[in-house]
Amino acid sequence: MTDSNLDRPAAQKPFRRLLLTGAAGNLGKQLRGALAAWADVVRVTDIAPLGDVAAHEEASIVDLADEAAVHALLEGVDAVVHLGGISVEAPFEDLLDANIRGLYNLYSAAQKQGVKRIVYASSNHAVGFHPTTSVVDIDAPLRPDSLYGVTKCFGESLSRYYFDRFGLETVCLRIGSSFEQPKNPRMLVTYLSFRDFIELVRCSLFTNRVGHAIVYGVSDNRTKWVDNTRAAFLGFHPQDSSIEFEHLFPVTAPTAELDDPTQHFQGGPFVLAGPMEPKR
Amino acid sequence: MTDSNLDRPAAQKPFRRLLLTGAAGNLGKQLRGALAAWADVVRVTDIAPLGDVAAHEEASIVDLADEAAVHALLEGVDAVVHLGGISVEAPFEDLLDANIRGLYNLYSAAQKQGVKRIVYASSNHAVGFHPTTSVVDIDAPLRPDSLYGVTKCFGESLSRYYFDRFGLETVCLRIGSSFEQPKNPRMLVTYLSFRDFIELVRCSLFTNRVGHAIVYGVSDNRTKWVDNTRAAFLGFHPQDSSIEFEHLFPVTAPTAELDDPTQHFQGGPFVLAGPMEPKR
Amino acid sequence: MTDSNLDRPAAQKPFRRLLLTGAAGNLGKQLRGALAAWADVVRVTDIAPLGDVAAHEEASIVDLADEAAVHALLEGVDAVVHLGGISVEAPFEDLLDANIRGLYNLYSAAQKQGVKRIVYASSNHAVGFHPTTSVVDIDAPLRPDSLYGVTKCFGESLSRYYFDRFGLETVCLRIGSSFEQPKNPRMLVTYLSFRDFIELVRCSLFTNRVGHAIVYGVSDNRTKWVDNTRAAFLGFHPQDSSIEFEHLFPVTAPTAELDDPTQHFQGGPFVLAGPMEPKR
Amino acid sequence: MTDSNLDRPAAQKPFRRLLLTGAAGNLGKQLRGALAAWADVVRVTDIAPLGDVAAHEEASIVDLADEAAVHALLEGVDAVVHLGGISVEAPFEDLLDANIRGLYNLYSAAQKQGVKRIVYASSNHAVGFHPTTSVVDIDAPLRPDSLYGVTKCFGESLSRYYFDRFGLETVCLRIGSSFEQPKNPRMLVTYLSFRDFIELVRCSLFTNRVGHAIVYGVSDNRTKWVDNTRAAFLGFHPQDSSIEFEHLFPVTAPTAELDDPTQHFQGGPFVLAGPMEPKR
Amino acid sequence: MTDSNLDRPAAQKPFRRLLLTGAAGNLGKQLRGALAAWADVVRVTDIAPLGDVAAHEEASIVDLADEAAVHALLEGVDAVVHLGGISVEAPFEDLLDANIRGLYNLYSAAQKQGVKRIVYASSNHAVGFHPTTSVVDIDAPLRPDSLYGVTKCFGESLSRYYFDRFGLETVCLRIGSSFEQPKNPRMLVTYLSFRDFIELVRCSLFTNRVGHAIVYGVSDNRTKWVDNTRAAFLGFHPQDSSIEFEHLFPVTAPTAELDDPTQHFQGGPFVLAGPMEPKR
Amino acid sequence: MTDSNLDRPAAQKPFRRLLLTGAAGNLGKQLRGALAAWADVVRVTDIAPLGDVAAHEEASIVDLADEAAVHALLEGVDAVVHLGGISVEAPFEDLLDANIRGLYNLYSAAQKQGVKRIVYASSNHAVGFHPTTSVVDIDAPLRPDSLYGVTKCFGESLSRYYFDRFGLETVCLRIGSSFEQPKNPRMLVTYLSFRDFIELVRCSLFTNRVGHAIVYGVSDNRTKWVDNTRAAFLGFHPQDSSIEFEHLFPVTAPTAELDDPTQHFQGGPFVLAGPMEPKR
Repeated sequence: MTDSNLDRPAAQKPFRRLLLTGAAGNLGKQLRGALAAWADVVRVTDIAPLGDVAAHEEASIVDLADEAAVHALLEGVDAVVHLGGISVEAPFEDLLDANIRGLYNLYSAAQKQGVKRIVYASSNHAVGFHPTTSVVDIDAPLRPDSLYGVTKCFGESLSRYYFDRFGLETVCLRIGSSFEQPKNPRMLVTYLSFRDFIELVRCSLFTNRVGHAIVYGVSDNRTKWVDNTRAAFLGFHPQDSSIEFEHLFPVTAPTAELDDPTQHFQGGPFVLAGPMEPKR
Repeated sequence: MTDSNLDRPAAQKPFRRLLLTGAAGNLGKQLRGALAAWADVVRVTDIAPLGDVAAHEEASIVDLADEAAVHALLEGVDAVVHLGGISVEAPFEDLLDANIRGLYNLYSAAQKQGVKRIVYASSNHAVGFHPTTSVVDIDAPLRPDSLYGVTKCFGESLSRYYFDRFGLETVCLRIGSSFEQPKNPRMLVTYLSFRDFIELVRCSLFTNRVGHAIVYGVSDNRTKWVDNTRAAFLGFHPQDSSIEFEHLFPVTAPTAELDDPTQHFQGGPFVLAGPMEPKR
Repeated sequence: MTDSNLDRPAAQKPFRRLLLTGAAGNLGKQLRGALAAWADVVRVTDIAPLGDVAAHEEASIVDLADEAAVHALLEGVDAVVHLGGISVEAPFEDLLDANIRGLYNLYSAAQKQGVKRIVYASSNHAVGFHPTTSVVDIDAPLRPDSLYGVTKCFGESLSRYYFDRFGLETVCLRIGSSFEQPKNPRMLVTYLSFRDFIELVRCSLFTNRVGHAIVYGVSDNRTKWVDNTRAAFLGFHPQDSSIEFEHLFPVTAPTAELDDPTQHFQGGPFVLAGPMEPKR
Repeated sequence: MTDSNLDRPAAQKPFRRLLLTGAAGNLGKQLRGALAAWADVVRVTDIAPLGDVAAHEEASIVDLADEAAVHALLEGVDAVVHLGGISVEAPFEDLLDANIRGLYNLYSAAQKQGVKRIVYASSNHAVGFHPTTSVVDIDAPLRPDSLYGVTKCFGESLSRYYFDRFGLETVCLRIGSSFEQPKNPRMLVTYLSFRDFIELVRCSLFTNRVGHAIVYGVSDNRTKWVDNTRAAFLGFHPQDSSIEFEHLFPVTAPTAELDDPTQHFQGGPFVLAGPMEPKR
Repeated sequence: MTDSNLDRPAAQKPFRRLLLTGAAGNLGKQLRGALAAWADVVRVTDIAPLGDVAAHEEASIVDLADEAAVHALLEGVDAVVHLGGISVEAPFEDLLDANIRGLYNLYSAAQKQGVKRIVYASSNHAVGFHPTTSVVDIDAPLRPDSLYGVTKCFGESLSRYYFDRFGLETVCLRIGSSFEQPKNPRMLVTYLSFRDFIELVRCSLFTNRVGHAIVYGVSDNRTKWVDNTRAAFLGFHPQDSSIEFEHLFPVTAPTAELDDPTQHFQGGPFVLAGPMEPKR
Repeated sequence: MTDSNLDRPAAQKPFRRLLLTGAAGNLGKQLRGALAAWADVVRVTDIAPLGDVAAHEEASIVDLADEAAVHALLEGVDAVVHLGGISVEAPFEDLLDANIRGLYNLYSAAQKQGVKRIVYASSNHAVGFHPTTSVVDIDAPLRPDSLYGVTKCFGESLSRYYFDRFGLETVCLRIGSSFEQPKNPRMLVTYLSFRDFIELVRCSLFTNRVGHAIVYGVSDNRTKWVDNTRAAFLGFHPQDSSIEFEHLFPVTAPTAELDDPTQHFQGGPFVLAGPMEPKR
């Protein structure tokens, strides 16, 4: 970014160039269109095919573990929405490449290229071993529920370092369950509508200063396991709620399986998912 | 409970058998009807007459201080809503029988009968000696405002023990003032509508895991002395408010009686009510 | 106040006599009319002209630094809304007279005259050196952003002393930006509508007991830097929001001026405003 | 106490009359002699024989469940050290008489007789279900590990009420394991030497103001599960340590019984001791 | 300070020039000699006579309310130990000149002259309305017990502002009772030996970074009302204790005067000392 | 571990087999001898030569990044002291192999082999971006000061996961500066004597239950940046202090370099050390 925003004509959009990683994924597809309104150029990337490329878009297939490619990817970028990497439990070597090495490459390149801010898809699985009988705020101790969750903790620590060391800002989104609709009773609690997800990214990109922030990505559901009070400086107000989906899951008495750990911890099935054996 | 919920036909209700104590009391009458939707069988009990008994109900007059009767009462019960006992200041020996011995009998029997959960009518009088110029959350130190309040603290401790020791779950409802409408200005703050009370019990019965929980039972009144943020995992959202009753109490300047303790503490008149002399 | 409120006919208003200082100022003008409904007599004062005086009003021009005049001013007053003094950064000697000596005179006189409560216009500038990436509650450490802010901290300490020593109650209103509408993007966060300001004063005057309270005066804006949870006993619920004014400020990317302290701290431009040289 | 301390000759001891309950018990025997230095008259009581009665002593056998006897016992008493009642797990009815009804009788009588302060033998078993991998301070939530522990919670609540209601001060001593020497490895952590116990009572009696205080009674042992920082106003500094007894217990690797709850919780064997069946 | 410390010969002392205000006062006299070891030049000032002036000293009589004189006083100074001003309750106008206007002059001049650090004699009277049954840490809310205490709160706020605004560091010493020996039982708790006082100043001057720090100045007395845990970065370890003076005050039972506020609050007699009438 | 400790003759040592990684390093050399007293067999490993192997030792050169070798290394091991890996800032790929992949291999193997506990050499650099004007306790938020520090955060998260998921206990030692003596003024604060280091490991191995614990490894130095109060259940009491080394560093005024970040943050020079370029 060699010339300042101020030199550009007023008709231009707020950001000159935004980078979206993981653009071919579940949430990437949702967000991709919204970014058009916020940036003159939207650079989209994934390791999977990216489909049609719009006039305002730059598309490239990049493996985040490829250091040189990532450095090229970050050139000329104002800010990043980083949805790339693996978002479920996986063998450690896969997570190492995608979520650890890949993330380091992203931050290293971003710092060198003068990127100002990264919106980072962390996860509620960074704190999934907190019990379902508690409410965690943004200062709660890390309690990853899976190796995947451990890599999200890594991302939060790495981004904290880049902020404290270089002033590179990050908002860590501890995203719950963002799908068309909740798939099971637990997701009534962790549901984040696509619309609320996009609003959360918008707040994260446009709030004047964010420092190194952590915020839970959940809609205004009836039951809450998280508390965003201390992230209120981001101005995120979910508009949706899982209440409209409650009818999908018949009312039942508390399950008889009192010892089932997937019921005891906020992470749900993730707490039993790992570690996974490598695929050979 | 010898067979599991899963063995029952889908047409059955969530609970097989719920026990409601204090069913003839002010709140018991409100709740009794609602339970019909939640359980195949509703067992109702009180020391006072129980009125007409519906087809889905089992009714019995039981003194909670009668250990053997209480053990019989808990047989075959899935969960309990315990509204029984004394709910105002009273001579200590009366409180001892109803709220201490009676409660021990209830928990002892429930544990032996394999009951899974008890919804326990605690009271805001367990913390009534907190000043009206403070807001207490669910972790606030106990400050009972009466011997009655002390017995509610006992109940919270006893139920905590049964959870830590045996896994028997309890939700302690620190109920405010649940009447048709507020009877004085203080109740504008502590008012809990009957509808919100029933919803609070519903949340307490159907939340998948509750552990040993504490929650304040107040409607969405304008002035708040309590903060349920950390009980948000119960999903309780009051629908009513005392705002509609504010017109009943004319606006006045703060009372001239600056030393009146009933104005200084959340417990109101309870702080001066006890200890009471025994009735002889 | 030699006779009690109870001796007065029911037709009278809640307060017999309220004193409003700073009545000719920005907020004083807004509030002056509202007080008519709350008190039989409204005594208004300022160092600037007070305009037309209504039938229920007593008006006088008083310099708060004039000890004798202030003592006369407080005679027969039930409660005070103190908006007087300087509300922006100014040379220290000016602040000393208006906000320190003047405030002492007010409290000294109020205590001697038996005034029961003072609603004190403190300011968010008492905590303006907290970063914009944080949310401060009412217990947050003082971080004044200007000499003006330091004098507001003085006012909070002085009023605390008068409460602990004499029981004279105060509500410290940490008022944000109360204008017709926000004048810049920062004020979208700190905006307090006139209507909400008046409601905040109403709550502060009519809540039965307030002790020594602190509360933030902001409307229900989208972005929040403050948290009034522990002041909920005051019953303040803002009805307005700056959302309706967001269109006034075009959406932009975060400013390029990453080192600009007016963007980093809640106090905004105040953090660079002082200390000011005396006017000579 | 009809005449003031100031009326007495200087040669007299600090207290005119102290009452020691449980005087025939393990700790009562230790303390009884020390009290001679602190009070002109030491009234000792127990349900067990009290042995030789010294010239400065008044001895009486009293069942604390006997209301009239307890009221007589408290006449003319300045302060009480209450070690009476049951100090181990026991059938509920026994605990009810000794630790609940008995304690109520004591406080009811003390309040009526104008007693100024009670030093109450609470117990670490009021918080014994906190894990051994934590350190609890005096504000930690109650976690009784036994019905006995529940009765100690009752005592802390009851005494809080009498302080808030009547100003009757209490120091709750959460006594660990006070024996000649630790009897097992756990007691290396909970050990309170007799000398330190007596010093703790001395601090509790002579500190000018105590309000309603809670303090852990442990010596300066190497491993600590408790933190008295916020009770430092009592001036208690243990002089002894269990270090001298560590040689009694051979160094071992952590036990293989990883699921043994008596190793997981501070209460040790108490967590499995109850509830006990009544003796019939 | 135009040349850096590094340019000076190694034989010189750590500081080139230290300023000591209040040098003729109780504590100033104690400290004055010690400063000789720490600075090439010690500038001493007071409004009272300063006695003999040593070779390494510069002495001047300055009224802190005299702005021009204070600016001259700060020229060429590396760091300040500010003991000047009034250290007891006094009429407000006197406090205003000495502790408010005087302190502003000091900070204003220090900032302009490039002073790096001020060690500021605050007082435990800034928090003296905390009860004697509590322990306050350095983050405890301000609770001044006198107008004098209010001016100390002012000093803590003003110095915080100068640190946040200009990076001028301050250590606020909340000094207890620093005399040859305790003069009453309360001072057994608040006693600070002269030796410990000097050590506290030494730590405050030589710790590499202090930012804006608060620390309680008390010796290692038996009873503690304050907790310096979070000020441990200053490295202050008192060597003395009031234990050696306990024999001066005979052991007594808690005073009968249960309503005496000087016994209830840490500030002792200060809580009743003010406000004082002006001397005329 | 197929047979229990209880089956072994009393003459045997507490542990049957301990594994020490990093045995050829600075701290490994110190600890290696001490382990002889605690285990029948001490298995030592490093990537560097291990010198003479004692009769009770098993030695092997293993690269922790070699999964199969690590699994073999953990066979038959009761507990591990893990000092291996890189302990300074290094290029990311080196840290990735040694501190991330290597650590995962260690935990994965330990879990499969039934190891009960790991003592993990974390570092104060996991929190090195906390300012030197603060005191951090064991719950302080992670603030890594280097990529090295980020990998230590990873280790704390990974070990937390293995405890929550499998019950494998870990004590994370946030070791300061453990050398023969402090090498610079900062190390006067962070110094951990070799003797205290060994004692810290001893406590970590022999405390009956540790769960997932964090503790700072510093001696009893004069200045403290860390607070182990909540780790007191480990029983660690340092015997040494850097006070004896203070004479090595001449007393100086605070450095003139007020903007030097290595002076502002606890991590010292680490805060500027990274990220390092890879060695090629």
